[in-house]
Amino acid sequence: MHFNKLTIVGVGLIGASFALAMRKYKLCDFITGNGRSIENLKKAKEMRIIDSFELDPQKACDGSDLILFATPVGSFLEIVRKIQGSLKKGCILTDVGSVKGRLVNEMEALMPEGVYFIGGHPIAGSNRSGIETARAEIFIEAKCIITPTERTSKDALDKIIYIWKTFGSIVELIDPEEHDRIYAAVSHLPHLIAYAIVNTIGDLDSSYLRFAGQGFMGTTRIASSSPELWRDICILNKDNLLSTIDIFRSNLDRLGKYIKDLDSRSLEKEFNKARRLREGIGQN
Amino acid sequence: MHFNKLTIVGVGLIGASFALAMRKYKLCDFITGNGRSIENLKKAKEMRIIDSFELDPQKACDGSDLILFATPVGSFLEIVRKIQGSLKKGCILTDVGSVKGRLVNEMEALMPEGVYFIGGHPIAGSNRSGIETARAEIFIEAKCIITPTERTSKDALDKIIYIWKTFGSIVELIDPEEHDRIYAAVSHLPHLIAYAIVNTIGDLDSSYLRFAGQGFMGTTRIASSSPELWRDICILNKDNLLSTIDIFRSNLDRLGKYIKDLDSRSLEKEFNKARRLREGIGQN
Repeated sequence: MHFNKLTIVGVGLIGASFALAMRKYKLCDFITGNGRSIENLKKAKEMRIIDSFELDPQKACDGSDLILFATPVGSFLEIVRKIQGSLKKGCILTDVGSVKGRLVNEMEALMPEGVYFIGGHPIAGSNRSGIETARAEIFIEAKCIITPTERTSKDALDKIIYIWKTFGSIVELIDPEEHDRIYAAVSHLPHLIAYAIVNTIGDLDSSYLRFAGQGFMGTTRIASSSPELWRDICILNKDNLLSTIDIFRSNLDRLGKYIKDLDSRSLEKEFNKARRLREGIGQN
Repeated sequence: MHFNKLTIVGVGLIGASFALAMRKYKLCDFITGNGRSIENLKKAKEMRIIDSFELDPQKACDGSDLILFATPVGSFLEIVRKIQGSLKKGCILTDVGSVKGRLVNEMEALMPEGVYFIGGHPIAGSNRSGIETARAEIFIEAKCIITPTERTSKDALDKIIYIWKTFGSIVELIDPEEHDRIYAAVSHLPHLIAYAIVNTIGDLDSSYLRFAGQGFMGTTRIASSSPELWRDICILNKDNLLSTIDIFRSNLDRLGKYIKDLDSRSLEKEFNKARRLREGIGQN
């Protein structure tokens, strides 16, 4: 399987790593980058991550067989509206966004006849951002969630699965709505909380931060994640995230009540329950 | 400076590492261990972490020049009451507990004439526990908080400071009450939250856990910390922890409100504030 022209819309850590992996496994001939910052695109070209760049998304996607959306998820629909009129027949659009759900349906609805959208979400990248740390290898052994729908082209889906498997990823097919329920819990909630913990110390006395140990550093590492990226994720996965926050709040309130009541036994029981679950998924 | 007999009350990760460091730097001749589990004490002796052991704390501390409390903080007062009648004149008691505050005053009040208590808290250990991973080196470059009071013997304080500096730790002297305000925020709150996050996923659907990425793993690593240890810490630092939870809850509620209102701008501003603070203390 082979693509002639690949366009990366949003050349950040994940977009650039995808480009590097496509090159490494010789899955395409030519890579064009698109984005807001000409400095970043120039640097990506110098680093040979992309072969050329265009600031105009329509020009960047012109004649492409494969287009990867790797910008903050809140910008997807606007960009598709700009490029949809000039997409090449047979072209596949895919993405690496952390939100799927309704966004997948909206993207699909905007595809012209003979152009296909496949939602994707590689579980890679953590709190880093920017092309400096981009590597083809970040996808190896990482899960990549693909979210087909009833309207998905089997042929386009197979191609996208083939790409991620070639990268060394563990591909899982999940319904887009289910994806958003899962990731509200295991990713979006922890990010929101990490930001809230750090701001709590800011409210109390930011000089306390110099006393932080490894526990704090680990718990809040993702509070250095891109605010723009996470703003969009939280807004687009609003309903799932809000109901997950409610469940978290009940858990925290229960722990607070046990502390207030000096109920050591119930507190230890809750901690044990969490420890068993957490140890079940390993130390990493 | 040199001690003849050292007693470690509670031979876990930190107690055993303290013993190994005392040996490494030749700061004592003989080490006795005390604890609840004879299997653990036997193992510690086989591993040459301790020279002998006693299940009875009074016998274990008999004739000791230095006694380290490294059990869960909720057990300190009960153990001191058992040993206080037979402590050697000139003996120094110290500890590695995560709570200071009133506990330091209560410990001091139980010291017989000519016996000294110095509160200590090395910022080392994270979520691991048990003697298998004990090493003298875990204290190198780690902060160690020492909490003298108005009643503290200058001579005993100097000896404890000397020990930790010899171990390679960065010693900081802090008022016991201030210590508890700081660590409620930078340690006790994050631990409580990590347990609550994992239990939130348990409430939703624990099968979601297999989709967790690096962000979740980092944020919840400390949810595998010892439930018994953390139960005691939360109970003993109740007032500070409860007021810190309140501030955290306001922060989380504010973020939730911005999400509900689709207020991207305010959300991004809060995330940026947290990111700046978090990046100010490094990536580790």
